[in-house]
Amino acid sequence: MASIKPSVPKGTRDFSPAEMAKRNYIFDTIKSVFRKYGYQQIETPAMENLSTLTGKYGDEGDKLIFKILNSGDLIDQRLLDKLDRLNKYLEEKEIKPKLRDVLPDEVFPSPKDHTVTWVAGNVKSLMEAFAKVMDSGKSFEIYKQTNSYFINEISEKALRYDLTVPFARYVVMHQNEIAFPFKRFQVQPVWRADRPQKGRYREFYQCDADVVGSESLLNEAEFVMIYDEALGKMGLKDFTIKINNRKILSGIAELIDKSDNIIDLTVAIDKIDKIGLDGVSKELLERGFTEDDIEKIKPVILLQGTNEAKLASLRATLAGSVIGIKGCDEIETVLNYIAGNPLRTAKLELDITLARGLNYYTGAIFEVKTNEVQMGSIGGGGRYDDLTGMFGLKGLTGVGISFGADRIYDVLEELDLFPQTASQGTKVLICCFDADGEKFALPLLKQLRDSDIPSELYPAGAKIKKQLDYANAKQVPFTIMIGSDEIQSGLLTLKDMVSGGQEKLPADEIVKKLKA
Amino acid sequence: MASIKPSVPKGTRDFSPAEMAKRNYIFDTIKSVFRKYGYQQIETPAMENLSTLTGKYGDEGDKLIFKILNSGDLIDQRLLDKLDRLNKYLEEKEIKPKLRDVLPDEVFPSPKDHTVTWVAGNVKSLMEAFAKVMDSGKSFEIYKQTNSYFINEISEKALRYDLTVPFARYVVMHQNEIAFPFKRFQVQPVWRADRPQKGRYREFYQCDADVVGSESLLNEAEFVMIYDEALGKMGLKDFTIKINNRKILSGIAELIDKSDNIIDLTVAIDKIDKIGLDGVSKELLERGFTEDDIEKIKPVILLQGTNEAKLASLRATLAGSVIGIKGCDEIETVLNYIAGNPLRTAKLELDITLARGLNYYTGAIFEVKTNEVQMGSIGGGGRYDDLTGMFGLKGLTGVGISFGADRIYDVLEELDLFPQTASQGTKVLICCFDADGEKFALPLLKQLRDSDIPSELYPAGAKIKKQLDYANAKQVPFTIMIGSDEIQSGLLTLKDMVSGGQEKLPADEIVKKLKA
Repeated sequence: MASIKPSVPKGTRDFSPAEMAKRNYIFDTIKSVFRKYGYQQIETPAMENLSTLTGKYGDEGDKLIFKILNSGDLIDQRLLDKLDRLNKYLEEKEIKPKLRDVLPDEVFPSPKDHTVTWVAGNVKSLMEAFAKVMDSGKSFEIYKQTNSYFINEISEKALRYDLTVPFARYVVMHQNEIAFPFKRFQVQPVWRADRPQKGRYREFYQCDADVVGSESLLNEAEFVMIYDEALGKMGLKDFTIKINNRKILSGIAELIDKSDNIIDLTVAIDKIDKIGLDGVSKELLERGFTEDDIEKIKPVILLQGTNEAKLASLRATLAGSVIGIKGCDEIETVLNYIAGNPLRTAKLELDITLARGLNYYTGAIFEVKTNEVQMGSIGGGGRYDDLTGMFGLKGLTGVGISFGADRIYDVLEELDLFPQTASQGTKVLICCFDADGEKFALPLLKQLRDSDIPSELYPAGAKIKKQLDYANAKQVPFTIMIGSDEIQSGLLTLKDMVSGGQEKLPADEIVKKLKA
Repeated sequence: MASIKPSVPKGTRDFSPAEMAKRNYIFDTIKSVFRKYGYQQIETPAMENLSTLTGKYGDEGDKLIFKILNSGDLIDQRLLDKLDRLNKYLEEKEIKPKLRDVLPDEVFPSPKDHTVTWVAGNVKSLMEAFAKVMDSGKSFEIYKQTNSYFINEISEKALRYDLTVPFARYVVMHQNEIAFPFKRFQVQPVWRADRPQKGRYREFYQCDADVVGSESLLNEAEFVMIYDEALGKMGLKDFTIKINNRKILSGIAELIDKSDNIIDLTVAIDKIDKIGLDGVSKELLERGFTEDDIEKIKPVILLQGTNEAKLASLRATLAGSVIGIKGCDEIETVLNYIAGNPLRTAKLELDITLARGLNYYTGAIFEVKTNEVQMGSIGGGGRYDDLTGMFGLKGLTGVGISFGADRIYDVLEELDLFPQTASQGTKVLICCFDADGEKFALPLLKQLRDSDIPSELYPAGAKIKKQLDYANAKQVPFTIMIGSDEIQSGLLTLKDMVSGGQEKLPADEIVKKLKA
């Protein structure tokens, strides 16, 4: 129990009462809108089986998964068993003879007793064997191999990396209890072993809503409405919900036979406002597109005007692509739903340069940006066919969105949009000069709480200045002062800590006033 | 992406929408009471530095901490650096010459290049060195040594084991921002690598309130009130808050000079109702107490009656023990606070056999039991002087309580006490026969949501039976049916899904009715 200065792991944070109140305000607002649209909350465990998570986020993602050490001793019976099995495997596959050349004789004995020395010896030998059987020049490969061998021995669980894969796992596991379409929301932390930097954390909350088992584009339209309503409720006045459709991008790619370069294309087109048609053309040529390609997709590059105008232009350009036209139809359906139910605050903008999550989205793609503050996207999502296919349940389509809670927090802070009521704190602090005051105060304290007024009595004995400092630090808006005068007269001093004003009132009046 | 049947790690759980609604009801109720008494919410990261957690829970507890693998490659520069440092340490301490006898010459070279083979070789050699320098006969010790050596190399973080140690760490880290007394509550999951069994999980929520920096026994009294109010609010009608004080137990031990056997003593006394004085005496003799001891503490064994009667008896028995009388004074102060502010539902019972958390509690000890259901304690807590001493901040006393959310859940379920409103779900589902119906329904859907009525439209195209099944599965209490008749007449069918009754009403009337 050394008295070193304690800290939290890098990339993680404590949330103070003031921060929690604001975060609760954000989450409560979003949750209330999710509920209003029929979404129901679920929670999944922080720990998932490693096999549930690996292979779902690409090689780069896999590296960022936080793995949990198997409980109990590191070198346990299972490791011994596994070494035995590996031994047998090498035997069966006749790899052993090849290893014989590079390994000492005693590497694969049938161990008589499982001492730690034996295990240590075998681990070393196995690591060396891997190293030698593979091209020993490629030390990086050996390194990976030994690492992953070790990790599989000592870790079978990991912290969830996002809420989508656990949700897919949930749907497959509970498919017989679920009434489809299943509309769920989930607000829980996720963990990523990313390099921490400003605004990027290793532990952060995700706030997702998804529906699986419904192809209806009403879902897409309702997600647009949910963004509009939730962000509007929090006081944002100028924000844009960008919408695109993967099928439109596929159509464009089909047109010029450049499916693999669709990201290059959208990145270049995105610069049209800054560098003009000539600039974009130049960049596209540099990125391997031909003059002919550029000619064909010129209407796409020059796309502008209302969503309807853009859509008409896309329909003309993509006339030859079945999938492209399907994408246009889908966008139009969503726009029509919204037209019949106009948004309160948000602008809805068809943006064909939106290519977020292109690897997995198959239909709609969403992204939300505020226009009031310089900030990355505060929300995003899309439709992914076959969400649950990774766990063997085919043919379930899903569409979902996410709110970026940390960024929304920063936006609300910068625009000073958190309401006073977001503090959720104590409304009144009773300050007593002495033990007599405390005795006098206790029935009043009970009366306040019986009226559901969050209230506190500062423990007797402290100086009044200290008590008032406490009230200020906790942002308690009212204090009640009780000294001998007050006890005698029954008129208590109610002080408004914000205005500084005070008045003398009987206890009943104070309760009535604070309850209002 | 093999299609194996997915599962969650043993001891962990998914929470379905129905379960979440009930859990939220419990947590929201408790939180609202915490807030009413001036407690503020904080959150701490799931991951803490391993050094923050180890050594705080005893050897048995330490074993149950889930450790997180360092991110990135397992054999990394830090491991190499550490091996170098170990090398130097062995050199400085002149341990190396002793190791020379048992180790080959090449064990501690200054490595020219850090290949994986070199590391593997050194790890093995070091493990062997440890094994040999220690008594090589004691293989268990070697085993522990090599394990802990390995674990320290590959893990620096762990999942929190409770909320108390992270809270102490929080207080020390943020001491300059905190206004003391600091009243905080925290509702977050904790993780323990315990053997899972019925009702015991590896991931579960704790729900704690603590105050640090105040010696006032008003805090103890208010915790009794919080238990009373929160559990009463949830509909429990017969439950007992047991209270004891560590100082009373210390006084009894002082009386007979048996400080180490206080647990034995309380366990035996606890059986008085079942086995009588003779039985208890017999057991005490077996447990090493003398006839003389038993004579001295007979009034304690026979303690019964009201809390006041028990207290009077204890005062007489413990008259010679300063600490014992201090304990009696503290209990009396708490009882007096409560007498002036009578409990609504709970029984408050002085129980000197309550020895929960005896290792760390220094004053009050609490435990809550329901008398309506066979169940372990549903809450507990106590006062611990010097909470933050483990992180170098001396002299801060704390007192806190915890609600056992999982057990409270089971109790409310068994007593059927969850309110209908706890479902927090969709209030009305609009069912359409076809696309025309959907078009007609959309403005109504908007109207319902504008009135803050959680509502859904089942995507068009499904059979009505399927839509009603969906409503029933989700426990949606009302449905609105829209077919061609309804569109023509403007009179929509509102169906009460519980009673089965239905009526035809215009849209406005339906909204008004559902809003009520």
